[in-house]
Amino acid sequence: MTGASTPAVAIVMGSQSDWPTMKCAADALDKLGVASDVRIVSAHRTPRRLVEFAEGAAGEGFRVIIAGAGGAAHLPGMVAAMTHLPVLGVPVKSKALSGQDSLLSIVQMPAGIPVGTLAIGEAGATNAGLLAAAILATTDEALAERLIAFRAEQTASVAERPSAEG
Amino acid sequence: MTGASTPAVAIVMGSQSDWPTMKCAADALDKLGVASDVRIVSAHRTPRRLVEFAEGAAGEGFRVIIAGAGGAAHLPGMVAAMTHLPVLGVPVKSKALSGQDSLLSIVQMPAGIPVGTLAIGEAGATNAGLLAAAILATTDEALAERLIAFRAEQTASVAERPSAEG
Amino acid sequence: MTGASTPAVAIVMGSQSDWPTMKCAADALDKLGVASDVRIVSAHRTPRRLVEFAEGAAGEGFRVIIAGAGGAAHLPGMVAAMTHLPVLGVPVKSKALSGQDSLLSIVQMPAGIPVGTLAIGEAGATNAGLLAAAILATTDEALAERLIAFRAEQTASVAERPSAEG
Amino acid sequence: MTGASTPAVAIVMGSQSDWPTMKCAADALDKLGVASDVRIVSAHRTPRRLVEFAEGAAGEGFRVIIAGAGGAAHLPGMVAAMTHLPVLGVPVKSKALSGQDSLLSIVQMPAGIPVGTLAIGEAGATNAGLLAAAILATTDEALAERLIAFRAEQTASVAERPSAEG
Amino acid sequence: MTGASTPAVAIVMGSQSDWPTMKCAADALDKLGVASDVRIVSAHRTPRRLVEFAEGAAGEGFRVIIAGAGGAAHLPGMVAAMTHLPVLGVPVKSKALSGQDSLLSIVQMPAGIPVGTLAIGEAGATNAGLLAAAILATTDEALAERLIAFRAEQTASVAERPSAEG
Amino acid sequence: MTGASTPAVAIVMGSQSDWPTMKCAADALDKLGVASDVRIVSAHRTPRRLVEFAEGAAGEGFRVIIAGAGGAAHLPGMVAAMTHLPVLGVPVKSKALSGQDSLLSIVQMPAGIPVGTLAIGEAGATNAGLLAAAILATTDEALAERLIAFRAEQTASVAERPSAEG
Amino acid sequence: MTGASTPAVAIVMGSQSDWPTMKCAADALDKLGVASDVRIVSAHRTPRRLVEFAEGAAGEGFRVIIAGAGGAAHLPGMVAAMTHLPVLGVPVKSKALSGQDSLLSIVQMPAGIPVGTLAIGEAGATNAGLLAAAILATTDEALAERLIAFRAEQTASVAERPSAEG
Amino acid sequence: MTGASTPAVAIVMGSQSDWPTMKCAADALDKLGVASDVRIVSAHRTPRRLVEFAEGAAGEGFRVIIAGAGGAAHLPGMVAAMTHLPVLGVPVKSKALSGQDSLLSIVQMPAGIPVGTLAIGEAGATNAGLLAAAILATTDEALAERLIAFRAEQTASVAERPSAEG
Repeated sequence: MTGASTPAVAIVMGSQSDWPTMKCAADALDKLGVASDVRIVSAHRTPRRLVEFAEGAAGEGFRVIIAGAGGAAHLPGMVAAMTHLPVLGVPVKSKALSGQDSLLSIVQMPAGIPVGTLAIGEAGATNAGLLAAAILATTDEALAERLIAFRAEQTASVAERPSAEG
Repeated sequence: MTGASTPAVAIVMGSQSDWPTMKCAADALDKLGVASDVRIVSAHRTPRRLVEFAEGAAGEGFRVIIAGAGGAAHLPGMVAAMTHLPVLGVPVKSKALSGQDSLLSIVQMPAGIPVGTLAIGEAGATNAGLLAAAILATTDEALAERLIAFRAEQTASVAERPSAEG
Repeated sequence: MTGASTPAVAIVMGSQSDWPTMKCAADALDKLGVASDVRIVSAHRTPRRLVEFAEGAAGEGFRVIIAGAGGAAHLPGMVAAMTHLPVLGVPVKSKALSGQDSLLSIVQMPAGIPVGTLAIGEAGATNAGLLAAAILATTDEALAERLIAFRAEQTASVAERPSAEG
Repeated sequence: MTGASTPAVAIVMGSQSDWPTMKCAADALDKLGVASDVRIVSAHRTPRRLVEFAEGAAGEGFRVIIAGAGGAAHLPGMVAAMTHLPVLGVPVKSKALSGQDSLLSIVQMPAGIPVGTLAIGEAGATNAGLLAAAILATTDEALAERLIAFRAEQTASVAERPSAEG
Repeated sequence: MTGASTPAVAIVMGSQSDWPTMKCAADALDKLGVASDVRIVSAHRTPRRLVEFAEGAAGEGFRVIIAGAGGAAHLPGMVAAMTHLPVLGVPVKSKALSGQDSLLSIVQMPAGIPVGTLAIGEAGATNAGLLAAAILATTDEALAERLIAFRAEQTASVAERPSAEG
Repeated sequence: MTGASTPAVAIVMGSQSDWPTMKCAADALDKLGVASDVRIVSAHRTPRRLVEFAEGAAGEGFRVIIAGAGGAAHLPGMVAAMTHLPVLGVPVKSKALSGQDSLLSIVQMPAGIPVGTLAIGEAGATNAGLLAAAILATTDEALAERLIAFRAEQTASVAERPSAEG
Repeated sequence: MTGASTPAVAIVMGSQSDWPTMKCAADALDKLGVASDVRIVSAHRTPRRLVEFAEGAAGEGFRVIIAGAGGAAHLPGMVAAMTHLPVLGVPVKSKALSGQDSLLSIVQMPAGIPVGTLAIGEAGATNAGLLAAAILATTDEALAERLIAFRAEQTASVAERPSAEG
Repeated sequence: MTGASTPAVAIVMGSQSDWPTMKCAADALDKLGVASDVRIVSAHRTPRRLVEFAEGAAGEGFRVIIAGAGGAAHLPGMVAAMTHLPVLGVPVKSKALSGQDSLLSIVQMPAGIPVGTLAIGEAGATNAGLLAAAILATTDEALAERLIAFRAEQTASVAERPSAEG
């Protein structure tokens, strides 16, 4: 979801192929009524777009950035290097190494430039959306209440027993 | 720990042995003028303290939680399961597996309960402090400026050439 | 199998999706005539249910607990943290990392709170059932005999030569 | 080893070099007043001793077996193959691979022959002792009470805050 | 291939499911005119058969043993523990961990009991057959010549350029 | 660094702490009479310096770039993203993961932006120097001869037998 | 592409089965107008062809060598051992270990003999072609311009937003 | 090295630094009265020596070859590629990756060229010596008896109980 005048969350990803994963972040935000702006920013193929995006993100009015990439996944860390906004990283599952490369490339940042890293793949993208919402909710009571309600529903939706059981 | 009436950040860790690592989170926050409250909360040895802490954290007035643990590191995820506050996880380096177990135990959370995970060890703890500050800074201009200044200093402190060079 | 008045074994799992794996534990117990009670208890989505279950398990009359989960698998360790009953853990195969994350999250428990961990996936679930039976058999002669008979049959069922061989 | 006429727990290990690790299992049992018998049984160097021990363990009166080994650690699984008693496995930290080989060699047992596996190294050995006690405690009220008391003390011993803090 | 009166090579495997892999060992030997005897010997499910086989192998007239197994693969090492014949191990690809567990369980033997380990899966089984033949060929000139001819053919069969190239 | 008017090779590294490793690259070039220019360029702490360096490298007259970094090592890939010069990457050994993170972060680049990656640590840095020289030698006969001579000396320096042998 | 009288780049691979991967290297070179010569050279099955190729490569007029192989991938390193030309290595995805074995076998070369290693699989092969072109472009202005144009096109082809987005 | 006119076993290693490991192979053979010839043959730095050694090994009268190397360990596989003699590989522990690279580089050979691989480090080297002896013993009764005696002694030397026990 890309929302209205000033979406609070930017979702960026390294390539079109990351979208099926990263869509989960947008969907999670959408469910909580948080607008997001979704863009492709390739650290490697569009480095200038990366610089412009990252340096301009705070000025554009974004308050949290979610960045997803796979393999030698440099996007989240490089965005973090050029903004003081909180950056959340989603390791997209890679072909040969199932996202182990993506995970280590994103999470093992040196002291000084943090990336809050989520799980590999769709669960991680969903959680990036939820964490972005939680961050915004620290100063948005209405959102905090929607988040609490979402969590309560989630809890309520867990069956007592597995369904294929007689 | 940096004290004051209502610190915005809680730093919890699984055991005393995590303190040399987790101290870096407190120090990073301290440098940015952010108060933190440091506690030992063992998911495994003090599960009730865990429940009380996590369920009460929002009510106590905390706005971000940093949780560090090693090995089968359940603390960050379990805190996240019982609060809607943003939770940041620090994988403490473990004896046999160098923190690979800590990292996977913290980062691979299922969809629904996010933990923003940082790097293994001290760099990760420092970055947890910085990310917590960045989260608070999204609605605290003065802190945002201190963070921007910190980052500028950090940039300025990088020498042009390695020092042992003639 | 969930059995009669007081099943000796509780089988809990983090989500419905773990059931195809965990069913093997119930089946193994069933074959040996051991009643089990099967429940979904999500450490992350239903933490209160977790606390209630784990704290109440001994009182309910359970004597062994089998807990299965995948990814950042906190269920077995958290149950173990809140009961003195023996807890057996089954790492469910995860999507990206094939259960390596599940295994480390379950087995690498700190000193003080043990989880007896079985293999990743269905073999591990079957073996959790068998180990639970072996535990009960330490003071149940009839069950010990059934277990010994099961093992003898298992031995007898191994062909001398591979079948597609002329 | 804690002596007396018929110790309930046998602790076996592949070599003298495993003793500093496995001693933690004996110590944990000792603290809970559970006698254990400690032996070296090398699956590879003393295979007949292995057969004699494993086949005779139930007859000797043991009720739980703890087996520790490192590297291509076959002892726990081979003992389990020749007894119907519950077998707990401790992966001893190995030189080159830090116990990753020991862990996989012990935990990845095929369906039919379970080994309840604990963490790599001393924590795992301590926990093997505690889990053996928990197994015995399922039908020994006095031991159950000692175990509960031990756990309560353990909980009480966790400080509220890290000690090097001002 | 199981051959005539006294096949020089025994091929054993942990279960029927290993046969599609281990067949490659038999086939490789067959091509070189070396008789083999193929049996299922499960270290875990048929430990007595294991002891009988391994202790009796030299007496039966076998000169080399090939043993394949998957997961916590104890068969090759346990056979090696009970015979002075050269033992070659084949790590069969496992479900969750693709044979990484099989490989480490077989290759990481302690000093004193060697297992000559081949690659994971079919390539490893084929090579176990070829290595067994090479071992026999050290004192069998006719076989050495067949092996040399096989190798020459293998060399000759490598095309100069990939075939789908114009 | 070896100086002169226009060194052909730039050696960049993420921080002062990479210098003991990266010095090996400079030394290897030095031995072959190739001038290099050594700089600290942190992708994360000095992103603008990174952009300036990478975009300007060809214009400055560099012909090959060697970039070393550890952990989430983004420097080599980001330099490669902003220059058409050949970029060689050196994974510096990291604290917790021994350079496995560095290696994957550098080598697993997506199609379109190559980084020729060398081994983890000092051997890799030395080889980056040698490969840079080999690249330059493709059109510099004198250098090619020095490289051939270096290789011949290297070959000659390998003793026939290990030295501590009687 | 195999080109005219003296192709600048040799592409060698261990077997026919590597061709679908290595074709990407030839295609990348082809797009940039660089001729290549494609051959199968198996380090293990055709060691003499390996020696002849590697020792003769410089004399044949090749200026860069791309070598791809899987598993215990010795081809790139052995070619590098016998030529002073720059050698680029492509780890082909292997069956059991997804190319982790190929990667380590190629990249972890000892000091003295460098192999510039690319990513596992097709992306790595494409990048080997691009890096070979970049190496040639250091002294070929026309090629440098084609490479710069290719990179610009690549940048331009990255959409602003993911396409399945409304 | 144990000398005499025609040692049956050649022990080769990639560099002087492998000797402390590989000495264990020579020692193991020595204890069993098997002469060995020890040489440094670097696949990468002395490829011609490699070819001469490997192609000439059978002619020199060697009957088994033990080859040890670390990192991208190509020596065992390349020797195997150029001889029909049985080749045993020892993965020497490497600096950054503790021999995981050495192990995979040696064991994951493609079908057609086997290397019987032993454990990482000294245990593996000792076992290579023992396996070479076992191979020779298949047609040397006296050696077979010495090997059986060695194994019996080894068995007898295993204490019943760990020594630091009261």
